[in-house]
Amino acid sequence: MASKPSIPKGTRDFSPAEVSKRQYIIQTIKTNFERFGFQPIETPSFENSETLMGKYGEEGDRLIFKILDSGDYLKDIKDFSQIVFGDDFKTKYKDEDIDGMPSTDGDFFKIDSKKLTRFISEKALRYDLTVPFARYVVQHQNEIEFPFKRYQIQPVWRADRPQKGRFREFFQCDADVVGSKSLWQEVELVQLYDTVFSSLGLEGVTIKINNRKILSGIAEVIGASDKLIDFTVALDKLDKIGEDGVKKEMIEKGISEKALIKVQPLFSFSGTFSDKISQLSNLLTSSEEGMKGVEELKFICDNVATLGLSTATLDLDVTLARGLNYYTGAIFEVEAPKTVSMGSIGGGGRYDDLTGIFGLKNMSGVGISFGLDRIYLVLEELQLFPETVAATSKALFINYGDAEALYASQAIQKLRKENIKVELYPDNVKVGKQFQYADKRLIPFAVIVGDEEIAANSYSLKNLVSGEQVSVDFEGLKKALLD
Amino acid sequence: MASKPSIPKGTRDFSPAEVSKRQYIIQTIKTNFERFGFQPIETPSFENSETLMGKYGEEGDRLIFKILDSGDYLKDIKDFSQIVFGDDFKTKYKDEDIDGMPSTDGDFFKIDSKKLTRFISEKALRYDLTVPFARYVVQHQNEIEFPFKRYQIQPVWRADRPQKGRFREFFQCDADVVGSKSLWQEVELVQLYDTVFSSLGLEGVTIKINNRKILSGIAEVIGASDKLIDFTVALDKLDKIGEDGVKKEMIEKGISEKALIKVQPLFSFSGTFSDKISQLSNLLTSSEEGMKGVEELKFICDNVATLGLSTATLDLDVTLARGLNYYTGAIFEVEAPKTVSMGSIGGGGRYDDLTGIFGLKNMSGVGISFGLDRIYLVLEELQLFPETVAATSKALFINYGDAEALYASQAIQKLRKENIKVELYPDNVKVGKQFQYADKRLIPFAVIVGDEEIAANSYSLKNLVSGEQVSVDFEGLKKALLD
Repeated sequence: MASKPSIPKGTRDFSPAEVSKRQYIIQTIKTNFERFGFQPIETPSFENSETLMGKYGEEGDRLIFKILDSGDYLKDIKDFSQIVFGDDFKTKYKDEDIDGMPSTDGDFFKIDSKKLTRFISEKALRYDLTVPFARYVVQHQNEIEFPFKRYQIQPVWRADRPQKGRFREFFQCDADVVGSKSLWQEVELVQLYDTVFSSLGLEGVTIKINNRKILSGIAEVIGASDKLIDFTVALDKLDKIGEDGVKKEMIEKGISEKALIKVQPLFSFSGTFSDKISQLSNLLTSSEEGMKGVEELKFICDNVATLGLSTATLDLDVTLARGLNYYTGAIFEVEAPKTVSMGSIGGGGRYDDLTGIFGLKNMSGVGISFGLDRIYLVLEELQLFPETVAATSKALFINYGDAEALYASQAIQKLRKENIKVELYPDNVKVGKQFQYADKRLIPFAVIVGDEEIAANSYSLKNLVSGEQVSVDFEGLKKALLD
Repeated sequence: MASKPSIPKGTRDFSPAEVSKRQYIIQTIKTNFERFGFQPIETPSFENSETLMGKYGEEGDRLIFKILDSGDYLKDIKDFSQIVFGDDFKTKYKDEDIDGMPSTDGDFFKIDSKKLTRFISEKALRYDLTVPFARYVVQHQNEIEFPFKRYQIQPVWRADRPQKGRFREFFQCDADVVGSKSLWQEVELVQLYDTVFSSLGLEGVTIKINNRKILSGIAEVIGASDKLIDFTVALDKLDKIGEDGVKKEMIEKGISEKALIKVQPLFSFSGTFSDKISQLSNLLTSSEEGMKGVEELKFICDNVATLGLSTATLDLDVTLARGLNYYTGAIFEVEAPKTVSMGSIGGGGRYDDLTGIFGLKNMSGVGISFGLDRIYLVLEELQLFPETVAATSKALFINYGDAEALYASQAIQKLRKENIKVELYPDNVKVGKQFQYADKRLIPFAVIVGDEEIAANSYSLKNLVSGEQVSVDFEGLKKALLD
């Protein structure tokens, strides 16, 4: 390969500094997941296509990476007329085309990609963690104690058009509970968000909450139940296109002026959580489902308030609808602090029939997800990564030759047993080059051992920041590097 | 999907207990990699096909999972005659075949899989971590400080025929140094193996070492340099087919009787490392390359001996040849304790031209790899996993209703801040069911809070192993669960 090597578009290499920072975030999330009683599972990177296809809509099916069957994947295809020729073949078929076969007319022998894929690919890369989790629960239902609190932190793949902040391979960090309808789960998930972001030192996040039943209730009271999706999709755009824009779109979708007057309160929806709750109660009194939603929100809000949050704020956002046709109860979304323009750094909700797609009915699930890449960007922008995260070696032992290197290695061996990261420069090259290496690697100390040090059974410890150099015995060396 | 869902053959779901144990091994390896000054990198799960194809031999090319291009991957194929028809099409072409087109005779329109793949797949899943690492080094050479000590712990994929202990998705744990020829690297890698397996409590592993130059030297002195591969492949089988078998195979491969007499010492090769070294010196005096190999082995052996190993043994195994056409210097392989029949649990070596395949010359690399799946099986068989590994929640708070659940949640919140894993049973169901859940989950304590406890601001703590129950205040509760 003459040309400089590269990686597929939408994918990334991660340098040591980047891996360390990502690991710091993942470790913080993991620790808190486990504190909250969630247990880790892992599923294969690829699933049988039938497990994934049709679960994410037509768009999703397109964006799923398919894996080519290995071996001679065409050997079992008997009837090529099903694949090789479009249905209109016969009409196209003309005698002169037959002349001088094989034809090089691509169109003539056009193969239909969609048709062919079914024949040559039976596996596909994981598109999210929710469907594999549902598959896992159904497949292992007899080994699982329900309610099952699981977390999963693994990469997913999507053939999306790459763009800023959107990648074709990225990690998802999900915590879900399946097998319990208890609203205490929603209460704990709000606490979990608050705890994780507080642990990361990211203060001022807003945990927005809504409830599918509220949205259905509103649609009901304004007599637009049949237009629930149109209604919520329009409402969801309030912060983007404003009140007039939303109203215009609703009217275009056939929602009446009279209805819009009824929902007027939603456009000036403000005040404390409880204020909003009471406004909604007034609006939704006539809708049983709507009032059920109000009740649920009140339960969550009251208990979260009593327990208290460390640094996050819980806010009722009646325009929040993300993945509506999916959630059946609570809907969550976490917003980064206003100071950074990042938008959602997490989301989730309750779906009453998580495992139905795989034939296990009445399994209610509720879960939340953390957006690793965006959290990374936020912590970077606000400089919230602890300095210790990208910690490199504490000291570099300068290599003056094999005798000195052996003496150094004996100290290195003992220091590593004390869990101190130290390394020997492998080659006996110019000292300047070795110091330059320590400098570039941001290694804070250099340890110099020549004949004198060996004779005195000592070590010359040089602080590469201050330039100060001291002679110490092993205990002194250990003490200095432990700090 | 009516049928019970399943996963592709050769892949695995990992349960919470399994993930915890795997994480324990990975974390131990990671910690020691970093103590030794290795830095983590991560590369994408899929690479451009050209990066991987042709790097693992013909067999490897077959076993690489290819990813189907997304979208209408056939739209750019103009000349189907190149793909759709085997070269012998014209000879097969007969008038009667044309009659009644489209033909349903699969053979007639046979497509050549190999030819088609180039057109419909441009990405492939990572097959190992070494080639992506080499690609990374060349691509990022200007950002890297050499010598570059990197570690990488990520899954790889191979379309191998699945069998016991061989999977289509598995993790590799590699540590490599690139950009230094220093033999101190080999010394440290032996120490690293020893340190990791000691940390895992796995005593009695044997670190077998050999050197490509030794094998070349032997072939040279017996006048079989042209038969180096045949010679080493046969020698490698000594433990399987025995002395006679090896000799028989060597003779079949055209190695002379006279040569076999010369190498006789190899068949009764024994004694201490130094004994073996001196035997080899005698055998190889006439081979410059061979003597270079002896020197290298002696350097490594002497320094490792002086520094000492915790629990592992370093042994010179002149039959060790793994991936010969790849390694140019040291060759490593780690053998599990004799008590378990597991074979190699790690391996590695030196390759003098790691990045040449991507156009960056003279980059010597040396590295080792840990076999996660086999190490797991060994620790399992020898029951070396600490009990704390699969640690579930420390206590389950029994749910007697919302008032009690809120009181419990206040304690739970404070306990989690102390990093104690506790959970509330989400639903107010029969107490027996809740205790059964704690039992199945192996949760050691239950905390019972009813009106009395709330009134007394106390907690009833039940030890689910001994059955003993005590009433404690919050401090008492914390203390009991911290132990």
